[in-house]
Amino acid sequence: MAVNLTEPGVLLPVKGIRLSACSAGLYGIHRDDFALISVDEGSTGAAVFTKNHFCAAPVKVARNHLAAAPPRFCLINAGNANAGTGEQGVRDSIKICRALAETADVPLSSVLPFSTGVIGEYLPVDRLSGKIQELYSGLAEDKWLQAARAIMTTDTIAKGASRRVVIADREVTVTGIAKGSGMIRPDMATMLVFITTDMKVEQNFLKQLLARAVEKSFHRISVDGDTSTNDACVLISTGKSGCEINDDADVNAAFEQAVTEVCLELAQSVVRDGEGATKFITVDVAGGLDSNECLGVAYTIAHSPLIKTAFYASDPNWGRILAAVGRSGIPDLDIMGVSIYLSETCIVENGVRAAAYTEEAGRAAMDSDEIKLRVELGRGNASETLWTCDLSHEYVRINAEYRT
Amino acid sequence: MAVNLTEPGVLLPVKGIRLSACSAGLYGIHRDDFALISVDEGSTGAAVFTKNHFCAAPVKVARNHLAAAPPRFCLINAGNANAGTGEQGVRDSIKICRALAETADVPLSSVLPFSTGVIGEYLPVDRLSGKIQELYSGLAEDKWLQAARAIMTTDTIAKGASRRVVIADREVTVTGIAKGSGMIRPDMATMLVFITTDMKVEQNFLKQLLARAVEKSFHRISVDGDTSTNDACVLISTGKSGCEINDDADVNAAFEQAVTEVCLELAQSVVRDGEGATKFITVDVAGGLDSNECLGVAYTIAHSPLIKTAFYASDPNWGRILAAVGRSGIPDLDIMGVSIYLSETCIVENGVRAAAYTEEAGRAAMDSDEIKLRVELGRGNASETLWTCDLSHEYVRINAEYRT
Repeated sequence: MAVNLTEPGVLLPVKGIRLSACSAGLYGIHRDDFALISVDEGSTGAAVFTKNHFCAAPVKVARNHLAAAPPRFCLINAGNANAGTGEQGVRDSIKICRALAETADVPLSSVLPFSTGVIGEYLPVDRLSGKIQELYSGLAEDKWLQAARAIMTTDTIAKGASRRVVIADREVTVTGIAKGSGMIRPDMATMLVFITTDMKVEQNFLKQLLARAVEKSFHRISVDGDTSTNDACVLISTGKSGCEINDDADVNAAFEQAVTEVCLELAQSVVRDGEGATKFITVDVAGGLDSNECLGVAYTIAHSPLIKTAFYASDPNWGRILAAVGRSGIPDLDIMGVSIYLSETCIVENGVRAAAYTEEAGRAAMDSDEIKLRVELGRGNASETLWTCDLSHEYVRINAEYRT
Repeated sequence: MAVNLTEPGVLLPVKGIRLSACSAGLYGIHRDDFALISVDEGSTGAAVFTKNHFCAAPVKVARNHLAAAPPRFCLINAGNANAGTGEQGVRDSIKICRALAETADVPLSSVLPFSTGVIGEYLPVDRLSGKIQELYSGLAEDKWLQAARAIMTTDTIAKGASRRVVIADREVTVTGIAKGSGMIRPDMATMLVFITTDMKVEQNFLKQLLARAVEKSFHRISVDGDTSTNDACVLISTGKSGCEINDDADVNAAFEQAVTEVCLELAQSVVRDGEGATKFITVDVAGGLDSNECLGVAYTIAHSPLIKTAFYASDPNWGRILAAVGRSGIPDLDIMGVSIYLSETCIVENGVRAAAYTEEAGRAAMDSDEIKLRVELGRGNASETLWTCDLSHEYVRINAEYRT
């Protein structure tokens, strides 16, 4: 069902990173659901966590651990979000971290836990702890795809992205995996992202770089990045490439571009595998006074069930789009300055249907499974882009049947 | 498909009001789609219009006319919203008003036009003008239901409500009709409401009373009252009952209650006939510091496709509800103070699953087609209530196929 998305062919190993996956039986069916990412000593890590007040137990534990020590392991289970589980949830999460810390002989706080899946069930601690040894023994550099598969929930395709660039005459690799089915109001724990690199980056720089990359990628898809209970995006630097961030702006820019590209590819993969998605939609809003009003218009469009069902039906129902622009919260908007394009077809010009527009042209533009919607506000020079998908019968089916 | 909603049996005539309906052929099928409400001389009127910057031509004309003269006619067509039609749309709307003004020999500005239906098509002016004489000749006191049927678009049931109360020893009648299929992000022109009374009310008081009644009813359903292009709610007083608003607080309160009850019944009818609705859901949020934070929580719940699909599936997926509370924008929310009830069943107590809660009890509460969801924030004494419906396959079908 995913829109023009296939499983990644090759995910390049990153020096200092090993992975492993196994089944802890958290789903009724046979599949891997427990993954481990091992990080060599001397690495640095940064993370962006959900801002939801109702954040899951592992989010609290991971945030505390990351603040206390450099990361050595990310331990991830699917099938159970360990959210809404109160103090016991926190104790459970720590217990599983401790089982791994003892096996690997590392400090407890160097283990970062992540959980994704159904809310409100207690974690099967014994079952997960019983699998720690198997996970640990299985660690290998080339298991990126296995790990990506193990963290899937309603995803239909494993998601990963890699870049290898030459910076200052050295090969630097950035490889990441993600899980998520980007929808308008994401389910709990919709998005987990793990990105690693062998570039050497000190922690403060890593934090700032991650914030910028997330802003341009995961915060530009119609998954509300800050609202889910278990969302997290982690960036880890092992420094094993021999290349490091320094005062050379070109070095830093080349590296930042590689990280941003990986983030963008993963973020778009989440949308392409959006629950029930049949179309991948790029929403460009230009001509705003500032970035905020462009984003306001773009999100009003991307969150409108009426527009999303029209995309699903390939119906160029531009009235719905114009009405969304009209209610997107720009207080002094002059609708007569607004123009709207569907791919190359101008459908609305200065607030009314474009003279040359025909229903046939609109329908032809809508028929594609890759659609570009462009809104020009005619007010200023700011612009923003985000990515979303349509709303189909399949979305309702998936979410109605999620736990049944 | 509507949830526990049937066509109104008796809609009480209001002295000084006559109605008429006919077919102008705006739909391919045989049905009435053109309605007229005639108001005796000496009446007063007030209206609430959409706040969308992209408001339709008839909204502009009706707003201007109401400001210029007391209303004598409301002229309403379904099947075409006359929105996104620019200056020509305004001219078209005025032409049809003029045809009626000439037929009835009243000032142009005493005719209020309303349109609802598809966006971006020009109004078939000649066809509508050609039906004015038939509409005008057919006016009668007892045609409330015919008029209610004629203004339907995706509605499955005509909507009306009446109250007759004795105030200061005189019978006062309030009767209203509405069209609308209340959904999270309403289509253009989703809601039109016409309420009339024979109580004598001067215009300023009428305005204030309408604003208060709308605030408690149409602004408390998950139809975004201020976002559609053609939304309007009109309240007309003919004064023919011989009873009038005066300095007696009891008189005014009794009348306001009757108007508010009619508004509430109509607003809830819109939700009950929500596109694809299979459940009618009352969302109560209590224990907030103020009304705004209660509304923020209530709307976050009412607009969440994930919660709405869970209602559709009768799945007591309380994690989705708790997560919605957590992201509803209360900056200092302590999730450990939040409790959630499904009808009489406590599902979340102090931020975690209630000790006594069982999945069976949750599912039993969800199985009903009338569900009450109560959230207690544990912060203060403010509370708010609103009404919404679930999100079903049928919603996607209706909105995907709306124009096809």
